[in-house]
Amino acid sequence: MTLSPSDIDARLTAVRDASPLVQCIANAVVLNHLANTLLALGCAPAMVDIPEEAGAFARTAAALLINLGTPYAEPRAAALEAVASATDAGVPWVLDPVAVGSLPVRTRLARELLRHQPAVIRGNPSEVMALAGSGRGGRGTDTLATADDARQAAQDLAQRHQAVVAVSGETDLVTDGVTDLRVRNGHPWLTRITGGGCALGATVAAFVALDSSQPFKAVAAAVAAYAIAAEQAAAHAAGPGSFKPAFVDALHNLDQATIAARLNMS
Amino acid sequence: MTLSPSDIDARLTAVRDASPLVQCIANAVVLNHLANTLLALGCAPAMVDIPEEAGAFARTAAALLINLGTPYAEPRAAALEAVASATDAGVPWVLDPVAVGSLPVRTRLARELLRHQPAVIRGNPSEVMALAGSGRGGRGTDTLATADDARQAAQDLAQRHQAVVAVSGETDLVTDGVTDLRVRNGHPWLTRITGGGCALGATVAAFVALDSSQPFKAVAAAVAAYAIAAEQAAAHAAGPGSFKPAFVDALHNLDQATIAARLNMS
Amino acid sequence: MTLSPSDIDARLTAVRDASPLVQCIANAVVLNHLANTLLALGCAPAMVDIPEEAGAFARTAAALLINLGTPYAEPRAAALEAVASATDAGVPWVLDPVAVGSLPVRTRLARELLRHQPAVIRGNPSEVMALAGSGRGGRGTDTLATADDARQAAQDLAQRHQAVVAVSGETDLVTDGVTDLRVRNGHPWLTRITGGGCALGATVAAFVALDSSQPFKAVAAAVAAYAIAAEQAAAHAAGPGSFKPAFVDALHNLDQATIAARLNMS
Repeated sequence: MTLSPSDIDARLTAVRDASPLVQCIANAVVLNHLANTLLALGCAPAMVDIPEEAGAFARTAAALLINLGTPYAEPRAAALEAVASATDAGVPWVLDPVAVGSLPVRTRLARELLRHQPAVIRGNPSEVMALAGSGRGGRGTDTLATADDARQAAQDLAQRHQAVVAVSGETDLVTDGVTDLRVRNGHPWLTRITGGGCALGATVAAFVALDSSQPFKAVAAAVAAYAIAAEQAAAHAAGPGSFKPAFVDALHNLDQATIAARLNMS
Repeated sequence: MTLSPSDIDARLTAVRDASPLVQCIANAVVLNHLANTLLALGCAPAMVDIPEEAGAFARTAAALLINLGTPYAEPRAAALEAVASATDAGVPWVLDPVAVGSLPVRTRLARELLRHQPAVIRGNPSEVMALAGSGRGGRGTDTLATADDARQAAQDLAQRHQAVVAVSGETDLVTDGVTDLRVRNGHPWLTRITGGGCALGATVAAFVALDSSQPFKAVAAAVAAYAIAAEQAAAHAAGPGSFKPAFVDALHNLDQATIAARLNMS
Repeated sequence: MTLSPSDIDARLTAVRDASPLVQCIANAVVLNHLANTLLALGCAPAMVDIPEEAGAFARTAAALLINLGTPYAEPRAAALEAVASATDAGVPWVLDPVAVGSLPVRTRLARELLRHQPAVIRGNPSEVMALAGSGRGGRGTDTLATADDARQAAQDLAQRHQAVVAVSGETDLVTDGVTDLRVRNGHPWLTRITGGGCALGATVAAFVALDSSQPFKAVAAAVAAYAIAAEQAAAHAAGPGSFKPAFVDALHNLDQATIAARLNMS
C-alpha cells in the first residue's frame, strides 16, 4: 500500500484551496506552533478551548484536534464538549494522547474521549501502547520504542475504535487495523523541537478535514508531507532553532517535485 | 489626514526611549509573540493576568492590552480588575476583541469591558462589526470582509465609546468616528502567522502609552510602523516561518528612511 | 574561584549524554521557549504542571524547575505538590521567582515554596532582593539594578536556604553564600527576547540534574555555557527576532573551542 507523489500533492493542494477551519484544544506549550503550522498549510486554525464555547464551535469546524498535554480543567471540559458535538455533527476529530500512561488525569480523560469515535489517533509508540493497554507510557513525550514495537497495539486500537492510528518514530507507521503503511521520511530534529509530534497531529486533522471518507489515505498523505517538509527544512538549518522556522517555510512551500524526489513510503 | 514619516519615527523613538511598561492580558496562543514584539519595540511587557495581581498592577502600567482569545476564567477576572484600575488611574487601555460574535463567553466579556472606556479598539472587520452589533463575527480570527466593509461599524463604535477604532485588513482603517485614515502598507504573511493582528494590538498599546492625549495619531503611527516593518521583513523571508523572526528584527531596526520609502497612508 | 573551559564542556557533554528528564512548572509566556532550550541541550523536558500529576511525576524527574510568572491556580497547586515530592525524593529543584516583590499571589507562593529546600534560586537583581526581603521588586521582569547591587541579598538567601543563588545581569553573579563567582559573558539581546532569564533557569536545572552534589559548580557552568551561546548567537543575528532561533542553535552546537575562546569568569 502506498500513495503516489501526485496523490499527496493533490491532497495538500486541496487543503490549501479549501482553507479548512481546524479547531484545536491543545497543550499550552505548543499552541503557538500548532497555529503557525496550520496557517502555513493554508488552514484557518481556531484555538477555541473553553467550556460553553468549544462545543458549539466544533459543529462549525471542518476538523477538531484534541491534544492532551498540559490538561488544565477548562480545556478538559472543553474537550469533552467538543468531541460530543463533533461526533454528533459528523466532524472528524483527532486524538493526540500526549504522555498518557502513568499520568492519571490525562489518561482518564483519554479513555473517556475514546468513547466518542475519533477518526484518527496519533501518538508516539509509548503513548499508543499505553492507550491500547499494553504499556505504561514513556517519559513525558519522550519514548525509546520504535513505531513497529507499537504495531500490535496500534492495530488493536484501530480495530477497537474503527480509527486510523498513526505512530510516530524514525519510521512512521499508519494503520487502519488491517492495512499498514510506513513512511521513512523525516528528520531527528523533529524530536529536538517541542511540538514536533503535536504539529503532525494538527496536520493530520487538516488533511482529514478534506477527506473524512478516506481517512487512511488522508492520514498517510499528511504524515508523508510533514516528514518530507522536515527533511527539506533540515537541509537549510544550522540546528533545531533555525529548523523550526525553516520547517514552517518548507510546509508552506512544499510542492510535488519535492515530494516526488524524497517520498519513501511502503 | 495623514502623518509624516518624521512624525511616525518620532513616536517610535519616543517608545524606544521611554520603554513603557505595557501590561497584557492576552490569549495563550500569542503571549510569547506579543512579549517579543513589545521587547523588540523597546518596551517592558508584563503579562500580569491573574486576579488579585492584575488590578493593582494596572495602576502602575503605562498602557494595558486586553486580548480576548482563549478567555480562561482567571484572565477574564483579571481583565475586569485591570480595566477598572486602568480607567480609574487614567491608564489608556486597548481592547482586542478576538473572535467576538458567535462565541458567547468572550462576547459577553467584551460588552462588559466596553463600559470601561477603552482608548482604542483593534480588530479585524468581522470582529468590529460584531462588536458594533452589525455582524455575527467571522471564523475565529479569520475574516472575509475588508476594513472598509466595517467602516460604518467602526465609526459607530468610535463615537459610542469615544475611542479610536483600528480595523485590520489588506488596507487598515483607523477612525475616531469623525476622521478616517487608511494605511495601505503590510503583507499577506501577517495573516499566515498567528498573532499577526494581536501583536498589532500590543504595538498600538505601546504607542498610546506615550501619547494618550492624541490617541488617533498614536494609533495611526503604530499601524503604519507595524505594517511597514512587515513589508521590510517579507523581503527577507522565504515563507511565514522565517517571516516571523524577520518581522521582529524589522520592528527592532525600523528607521525613518525605511518609513519614508514605504509609507502609504491617506 | 573559576571553572576551566574543559570542566564546563564536560558538564555540558554529560547533560547531552544523559538526556535528563527536566520537569518544568513555568509561565505560559515562555513554556515553548523553555522546552526548546532544554531540547537543544539534549534534555527531555516535561511540562507536567497540573495537580494530581505534578507531584508523582516529580519523583521520577532528574530535576524540577518552578518558574512563577503567570501563576494560575492549577500550576500553583502543582508547584506545591511537585516541590514536596522533589524534596522528599532528593530531586534537586530550581526556583525562578519571576517578578516577586509587589505582586502578592506569586510572592506568597515563593515564600511557601522556599520552605522546601531549593537547590538553586535564579532571578534578576530585583527579584533576588525582593525574595531576601531587601527590595520591593522591579517592573515585571525588568530591573534597573545590577547583579552586584543584589550581592548581599543573594548571599543572605544562599545561607538562609543552603542554596546556590544565581543573579542575572550584564555580569552574572553566582554565590553559595560564601564563595562568589562572576560571569561576564552574555549579550543585551537576552533582555530583548522573552524568556531570556527563564530559559537560563531551565538550563541551570539541566546542569544541576547531572551534578546535584556540587550545585555551585553546576550552576556556574550552566550560566557560562548559556551566556557564551548568547554571544555566539548574536554574532549571527540581525536583531532579537533572529537571535532567538540562533541562540537555540548555538546552545545545541556549543563546543569546547567556543567556550575556551569566549569564557570570561572570575
